Amino acid sequence: MSCYRGENFPHGPKSLLDIRSMLQHDAPPPVTGTTIVGLETIDVRFPTSRALDGSDAMNPDPDYSAAYVVLRTDAEDGLEGHGFAFTVGRGNEVEVAAIEALRPLVVGLSVDELLADLGGFWRSLVGDTQLRWLGPEKGVVHMATAAVVNAVWDLYAKREGKPLWKLLADMTPQELVDVVDFRYIEDFITPAEALALLEERAGGRAEREELLRAEGIPAYTTSAGWLGYSDDKLRRLVGEALDEGFTHIKLKVGASLEDDVRRCRIAREAMGPEHRLMVDANQVWGVDEAIDYVAQLQPFDLLWIEEPTSPDDVLGHARIARAVAPIGVATGEHVQNRVMFKQLLQEDAMAFCQIDACRLGGVNEVIAVLLMAAKAGVPVCPHAGGVGLCELVQHLAAFDFVAVGASFDSAVVEFVDHLHEHFVDPCEVRDGRYVTPLAPGYSSEIRPESLAAHAFPGGSVWADAEAAR
Amino acid sequence: MSCYRGENFPHGPKSLLDIRSMLQHDAPPPVTGTTIVGLETIDVRFPTSRALDGSDAMNPDPDYSAAYVVLRTDAEDGLEGHGFAFTVGRGNEVEVAAIEALRPLVVGLSVDELLADLGGFWRSLVGDTQLRWLGPEKGVVHMATAAVVNAVWDLYAKREGKPLWKLLADMTPQELVDVVDFRYIEDFITPAEALALLEERAGGRAEREELLRAEGIPAYTTSAGWLGYSDDKLRRLVGEALDEGFTHIKLKVGASLEDDVRRCRIAREAMGPEHRLMVDANQVWGVDEAIDYVAQLQPFDLLWIEEPTSPDDVLGHARIARAVAPIGVATGEHVQNRVMFKQLLQEDAMAFCQIDACRLGGVNEVIAVLLMAAKAGVPVCPHAGGVGLCELVQHLAAFDFVAVGASFDSAVVEFVDHLHEHFVDPCEVRDGRYVTPLAPGYSSEIRPESLAAHAFPGGSVWADAEAAR
Repeated sequence: MSCYRGENFPHGPKSLLDIRSMLQHDAPPPVTGTTIVGLETIDVRFPTSRALDGSDAMNPDPDYSAAYVVLRTDAEDGLEGHGFAFTVGRGNEVEVAAIEALRPLVVGLSVDELLADLGGFWRSLVGDTQLRWLGPEKGVVHMATAAVVNAVWDLYAKREGKPLWKLLADMTPQELVDVVDFRYIEDFITPAEALALLEERAGGRAEREELLRAEGIPAYTTSAGWLGYSDDKLRRLVGEALDEGFTHIKLKVGASLEDDVRRCRIAREAMGPEHRLMVDANQVWGVDEAIDYVAQLQPFDLLWIEEPTSPDDVLGHARIARAVAPIGVATGEHVQNRVMFKQLLQEDAMAFCQIDACRLGGVNEVIAVLLMAAKAGVPVCPHAGGVGLCELVQHLAAFDFVAVGASFDSAVVEFVDHLHEHFVDPCEVRDGRYVTPLAPGYSSEIRPESLAAHAFPGGSVWADAEAAR
Repeated sequence: MSCYRGENFPHGPKSLLDIRSMLQHDAPPPVTGTTIVGLETIDVRFPTSRALDGSDAMNPDPDYSAAYVVLRTDAEDGLEGHGFAFTVGRGNEVEVAAIEALRPLVVGLSVDELLADLGGFWRSLVGDTQLRWLGPEKGVVHMATAAVVNAVWDLYAKREGKPLWKLLADMTPQELVDVVDFRYIEDFITPAEALALLEERAGGRAEREELLRAEGIPAYTTSAGWLGYSDDKLRRLVGEALDEGFTHIKLKVGASLEDDVRRCRIAREAMGPEHRLMVDANQVWGVDEAIDYVAQLQPFDLLWIEEPTSPDDVLGHARIARAVAPIGVATGEHVQNRVMFKQLLQEDAMAFCQIDACRLGGVNEVIAVLLMAAKAGVPVCPHAGGVGLCELVQHLAAFDFVAVGASFDSAVVEFVDHLHEHFVDPCEVRDGRYVTPLAPGYSSEIRPESLAAHAFPGGSVWADAEAAR
């Protein structure tokens, strides 16, 4: 199929269904000496802009998309690694091109050697002496790194027959430290400090894992509060969210102060004082503007103001954080790498650390940020939504709870009820909590029929729309 | 030719030479009502890694490359706008893809309307509601913005029959303020402050322009100090640089302290105490490592230490700056946007502001940074070298001198003597100074035969190398 760019089809292109049918989720037989023989990319887009779902002050018309990558080996187990970078539509093809640029750094590697030195593999991607110029370690190339690295971890977890969070939770403190690149963050956390932190928290791992399996992961919902919704719909959705067991609800703000005051009042009235209300401005304000605007929202007892300004502005976030307390500042979904997270933590600019599974350079760099947040005592509340982010971050939050941050007291994971049906192992939220995922892998795999239908521009979803114009 | 991806060849692809032959540099006739009808991209790469020229501690093997863009209009003047993003080889195709993604935002625009609202045009590129996710305003997409924006300014200057610096210097303070996006920097400089600064400095513009035309722009050379050179070659090149009139020389450091101490000693002995010596670490250190390393170089009376650590680490640069004084910290070639420059200036983390013409989002954002540096009293010393950067930054430095920073006391522009022969209007350095460019445009245009030969992978330079393998 034309949506595939892989070079490893010696007998001509196979259909997506053929390729996907090789998959299995049973405990795999032991394999050794295998090689990564294929890296395929697919430009996958969902036409979400056709409704107003997902609209916020900065992103009014997202078409949730994935620059999708499949790693294949020549092992008899037939297991594949699936990963993706999340985008919101146009430019997804640029992200696909960036993943393609990583191909020479991946295809041909020995799987055993790769999995034995995941830290070295990560450094080989971000340190490529020519590709590095395109970042370094930020934006398009870094998100491509995320896609590939996440695919490798997915493959690893499938081979071990464990969900990703469990694979990570079973690694020793030293093994975890070894996958992290401490370059540029050693002035905040050294490998020795990270090791000591993980060892100190290793004690309670078993109890926390039991709790995690029994009770799942605390979630909050953004589904009630998109900007495009009417007041009545907002009120109804808040009520439904409470009925579904959510205790934390987030609204999008930033387009109109008058509207936002009214919407916060509606939400707070519908919620009562005992539940938590958060707001998200998606970077629309300058620093002083953010301070002035949020002051007007103080009556509504907000837990956090999310992305009040440019994700690049560490000093600005610090100033906002001091000005809007006791409302906490939350940010991270657009924070490009561990160096920026380090500074936000150094400056007490971030009360809630919102890692993104696909903007940071994959699992390795997420672990770096989890360690720094744990050192700073800042709860990790991953960004999710879009397509597939919920599937990924549930693993990261679960691992953080078992082995790193070790608490769900203030940690709560975003949940948006979009597009889960396209995943082989969709996340499930029950009574306001993610049900702890148990299938082997990183839950990152999109169903083959969904890939085929949403491949851009040739998939039926897009071709039909084109034909209808 | 296959290296062209443009869609505007109604009669089939023309050769590069055909297209380029339409060019003229005489004073253009007045034109109105024209439209941008074509955006073509070319992946241009120079095989510079075949020698050791250009090697530093982070970039040992650059193939200097340009993701090149040509804008064409339907005007009878036949003028084109040429721009590019600079990369160091692999991944240049990703940058080309990003420029292609901007096509719908450019092709079809009225040239007159575009040139009448260059600020609005800039915001339309960085604010695209879907492409924005890939940055925002950083890395691959932002460099693509730079390429397109610079091409527009090149076209504008050609239409006005002026070199870019003169076009800018002739704009009123209000016109200059209008092209700048103050979003996220108003807490450091407001439009009103910028206007007042420009108006205050408008008084001396004529005298400074006269001085600029007579004396050119102070330059420094990096050509003596690449890491791959032997001690003898270093000594010889330092002597030659002094003979050529340079008073400032920069060495690459960071691979070996022992070697660097010896190389600094050799350079300082060859230079004598009266000239200025700078060193450049290209981001190889962590914060504490940088402080320790640079302490060992204090005996050599260094003017600046360049890129001591991650370009993302504002707080780290601030700490290094305090620790290594009186050596100044210089950075900027990898600083992604005005928001990061703002913070480096807010924190006194940067004693020399090294704008890059192609990493910032083109001329508009460069002006934003020039204004902030002027407010902070920090000299602007643009990054150059690579391919075409010298050609571009001479205009930016000239404009800064005439209208913004208004001083060459501490401002000095990098010069590397590579690849100038490929440009239609190559920069010229005489007696250690850039000769002020006078041809209309931004000096950004690569000669058509060079484009054809270096197009990747089809150009003769690459095809021949492939055939020889």
